[in-house]
Amino acid sequence: MTFRTSLPIRFGHEDHARIVYFPRFLHFFHCAFEDFFAGNGIPYRESLETDQVGWPAVHVDVDFQSPLRFGDTFDVDVWVAELGTKSAKFAYRGRCEGRAVATAEITVACIAMDTFRAQPIPPKYRALFEAHREPPTD
Amino acid sequence: MTFRTSLPIRFGHEDHARIVYFPRFLHFFHCAFEDFFAGNGIPYRESLETDQVGWPAVHVDVDFQSPLRFGDTFDVDVWVAELGTKSAKFAYRGRCEGRAVATAEITVACIAMDTFRAQPIPPKYRALFEAHREPPTD
Amino acid sequence: MTFRTSLPIRFGHEDHARIVYFPRFLHFFHCAFEDFFAGNGIPYRESLETDQVGWPAVHVDVDFQSPLRFGDTFDVDVWVAELGTKSAKFAYRGRCEGRAVATAEITVACIAMDTFRAQPIPPKYRALFEAHREPPTD
Amino acid sequence: MTFRTSLPIRFGHEDHARIVYFPRFLHFFHCAFEDFFAGNGIPYRESLETDQVGWPAVHVDVDFQSPLRFGDTFDVDVWVAELGTKSAKFAYRGRCEGRAVATAEITVACIAMDTFRAQPIPPKYRALFEAHREPPTD
Repeated sequence: MTFRTSLPIRFGHEDHARIVYFPRFLHFFHCAFEDFFAGNGIPYRESLETDQVGWPAVHVDVDFQSPLRFGDTFDVDVWVAELGTKSAKFAYRGRCEGRAVATAEITVACIAMDTFRAQPIPPKYRALFEAHREPPTD
Repeated sequence: MTFRTSLPIRFGHEDHARIVYFPRFLHFFHCAFEDFFAGNGIPYRESLETDQVGWPAVHVDVDFQSPLRFGDTFDVDVWVAELGTKSAKFAYRGRCEGRAVATAEITVACIAMDTFRAQPIPPKYRALFEAHREPPTD
Repeated sequence: MTFRTSLPIRFGHEDHARIVYFPRFLHFFHCAFEDFFAGNGIPYRESLETDQVGWPAVHVDVDFQSPLRFGDTFDVDVWVAELGTKSAKFAYRGRCEGRAVATAEITVACIAMDTFRAQPIPPKYRALFEAHREPPTD
Repeated sequence: MTFRTSLPIRFGHEDHARIVYFPRFLHFFHCAFEDFFAGNGIPYRESLETDQVGWPAVHVDVDFQSPLRFGDTFDVDVWVAELGTKSAKFAYRGRCEGRAVATAEITVACIAMDTFRAQPIPPKYRALFEAHREPPTD
């Protein structure tokens, strides 16, 4: 199963070249990451604050296919491409009206928020990730 | 005495209209606020972490005179326009090559970082603020 | 009539003090400004690109009442507090679950996008603004 | 030869976890990219506006080694790891007081700003890039 979310592209997201400033894509993908948790019944804040489980990015790989402009809607599919003991590689496919815009793979470590130390992914989150291993089929 | 700092305007600071996105000016003024502390021997982090004294904005007033563009240098003068018991009004004059760009008055409360409660401005900071009550004379 | 929109507060919107970095409020109010146009049948891009009418901020006044945190929803009411020939003062009331968070008045000039010169507000936009002169009543 | 620049890390650059929000690293690397041009006698704006040559990112690869915090200085080395006909892969090594923080490879296409079409890298820029093929030796 793939999780899908949509983000509005704003006036202030463009840069001098009048396309979305590319560093903002990582923010958009993180918003999709937050929506992935919330949309599956775990507000992202609950992970960090209640469960004290954090997910810092350790590796990022982004491929840009076409520009995004203000007024566009950015549709992002999220799934778990690789699932390790203490880390997971999230995959993102971003499109606009069906057009390929940007794809990314972002590997996050699972850490204890109090020590910032890596730890095994707790069962609650492992189950969530296992349920989203499939890339989109459309 | 006025404190002066300069900030480089970046490619990504512009918006769709190809001028600096106006919300970023508040970020620039906060950078100038941080530089004001650091330039006077108190790294801003020292205030928050070591002294546990925070300075949240409670009121902001900004006047925009002319646009700023990427490649420009933003010169900001900082001084303390009003000094109360538990708050201070910082004044900012932002220019580019002598041209008026934006001015602001930002009132900050003095709070204890552990309780987020307002408190009297500690002597160390009061002395710093007292020494910077004069607006620029040029 | 008041226009109302809601914005999700993100993990990356907080600063070192773990509350929303105050410059971001101006971005949120601009998002609400964009939503005001779009929600009334004029995508903001249509104003800038098709109609070549721009709305740069010339004055900003913000009052902060309480902090906003990641995971919160920021509800913003938008109305036109003052309507001049070539400018308008937009008022914003931002709340979270009914709690007062921040209010703002942002005066925008009406400009021609090709010359960046002030111009009288075109009838289409004047009608839109006239229809939203009332502050919220709740 | 490697180009080196330094960037101040600000209060507002941190996120809820009190470390720099990782999408901001791409902004920092772009700042270093701008400084690379300016520091070698070509203000980045000159490339885009005067020469009408743009450099959109088409691929990004970032590896995070350790967190960065507000008050830190981010030292970035920049060099050209690969040089093609119409694209170049820039490499970045980001450190703080000698500690490894983040490295990145960002491939940019060379485009004509009027058409947004890829074009061969003009001689002026090719010469600049050729002069910076060496990774840092320290």
